[in-house]
Amino acid sequence: MAKKVLLVYAHQSSGSFNAAAKDAAVEILTAQGCTVEVSDLYAMKFKATATAEDITGGVKNAEHFSYGEETKLAWEEGRLAADIKEEQRKLTEADLIIFQFPMYWFTVPAIMKGWFDRVLTLGFAYSVEKPYSLEIFKGKKAMLSFTTGAHESMFSANGINGDINVTLWPLQNGVLHCCGFQVLAPQIFWAPSHVSSEARSAMLEAWRTRLQGLLKEEPLVFTPPECFDKEKGFQLKPEVHEKHATKEFGLTVGHHLGKPLPPNSQMKAGV
Amino acid sequence: MAKKVLLVYAHQSSGSFNAAAKDAAVEILTAQGCTVEVSDLYAMKFKATATAEDITGGVKNAEHFSYGEETKLAWEEGRLAADIKEEQRKLTEADLIIFQFPMYWFTVPAIMKGWFDRVLTLGFAYSVEKPYSLEIFKGKKAMLSFTTGAHESMFSANGINGDINVTLWPLQNGVLHCCGFQVLAPQIFWAPSHVSSEARSAMLEAWRTRLQGLLKEEPLVFTPPECFDKEKGFQLKPEVHEKHATKEFGLTVGHHLGKPLPPNSQMKAGV
Repeated sequence: MAKKVLLVYAHQSSGSFNAAAKDAAVEILTAQGCTVEVSDLYAMKFKATATAEDITGGVKNAEHFSYGEETKLAWEEGRLAADIKEEQRKLTEADLIIFQFPMYWFTVPAIMKGWFDRVLTLGFAYSVEKPYSLEIFKGKKAMLSFTTGAHESMFSANGINGDINVTLWPLQNGVLHCCGFQVLAPQIFWAPSHVSSEARSAMLEAWRTRLQGLLKEEPLVFTPPECFDKEKGFQLKPEVHEKHATKEFGLTVGHHLGKPLPPNSQMKAGV
Repeated sequence: MAKKVLLVYAHQSSGSFNAAAKDAAVEILTAQGCTVEVSDLYAMKFKATATAEDITGGVKNAEHFSYGEETKLAWEEGRLAADIKEEQRKLTEADLIIFQFPMYWFTVPAIMKGWFDRVLTLGFAYSVEKPYSLEIFKGKKAMLSFTTGAHESMFSANGINGDINVTLWPLQNGVLHCCGFQVLAPQIFWAPSHVSSEARSAMLEAWRTRLQGLLKEEPLVFTPPECFDKEKGFQLKPEVHEKHATKEFGLTVGHHLGKPLPPNSQMKAGV
């Protein structure tokens, strides 16, 4: 069956490298028979800020307003704002979601952070009682595709910014894996504005090549949620330590267990 | 001399725990003789999204718009939008900056991310040529103060979210240390909405106690920028490896160098 792809895209300019990366994804995935939808956040003037206006028909508790609780209720009752509902529809229908953005301050730009905050609502995308375990996105893949200002050397474990896997942990484990997506390895375009046009073309060509096989890629390995004991505050079960030691699971950055982190440990694909 | 404090605050509700934490900071720091300014981002309807409208008098290159390059030029020429200029003024005058927020998706809410993206502009707050080394914020302290939805156990190295120090690395090293601030240990209010009102009061009381001595606290230890070799792509200088090994510098999360990360390594204060 034809796959559906959602591209959540955040760049102000159609002449940017990010635009070219987005266009390449649309072209190649469409040529493979996929249906590709693009959420062009700046063009949509996507509302970034989480406010009570995201709930239609009034909030439950204005004095002690909790965005999480209020949007959970609104989601259950179909009272989320129209733009949030529309993004949730796209997400529900998609088999693969690609987030395309320039890295700003070591994470996504505010407009894309606003998409996380407003679209990935409590109840719909995550659960306090069952973290990392909702079924809704289980069959879906998601990935980050981004440009950096810094060169790759600065994002090594010995580099001034530290290991890129540490920087990506809150996004890849914290947002994507937490919502239950299968997370594909990130596509990182290192400092395209600081290299030659030939080097930029080569980066785009490598992305086009990867896109040909993207739908068949194995996801990154994270410690599965069933390895954590809810009764013990979602701590790793003792019997799983052994599996970590024997690398049945890839050692992941946040679950280092006092062990050395092999370079690029989180990037290891497959089991 | 009396110290100036800037509180960058992001919560929608004056009845929230975050509001109470902010109010406590204003009260106690003012009582100590500090001048405290508050940027109440939701009340200000602070613009979160980085757009060409942040530059008055037109952009240089609309077709290949680069937010970093355009705002750098606009900053040099005094053509940044009035709200950005005003926040930059507050920042320039402050001796201590406290970011008070509820953690959304493992980092700051979009409205505060927008403050980072728009206020901490290239040239003013950071430099591509001299990363982590501008002098402007050298004498200033900055810190994160935030509430979580998750309990502390979930943010341990064995917890389902991974080590909180990994999650905070892009904010504490990536934003604050990169801009040259001295970073104070974070104030973390664990899951206030999931505990008793007595426990919430105790958390606020502990914060009030800490605030009494906050201005005298030693900052967290990060590997200093001069330890990295610009000619080698800002990689750690070989002679510094030894110092890391002997813990002259605290081992920090992103610069783990293949060594085990001691629990809370990044939290270690003092040298």
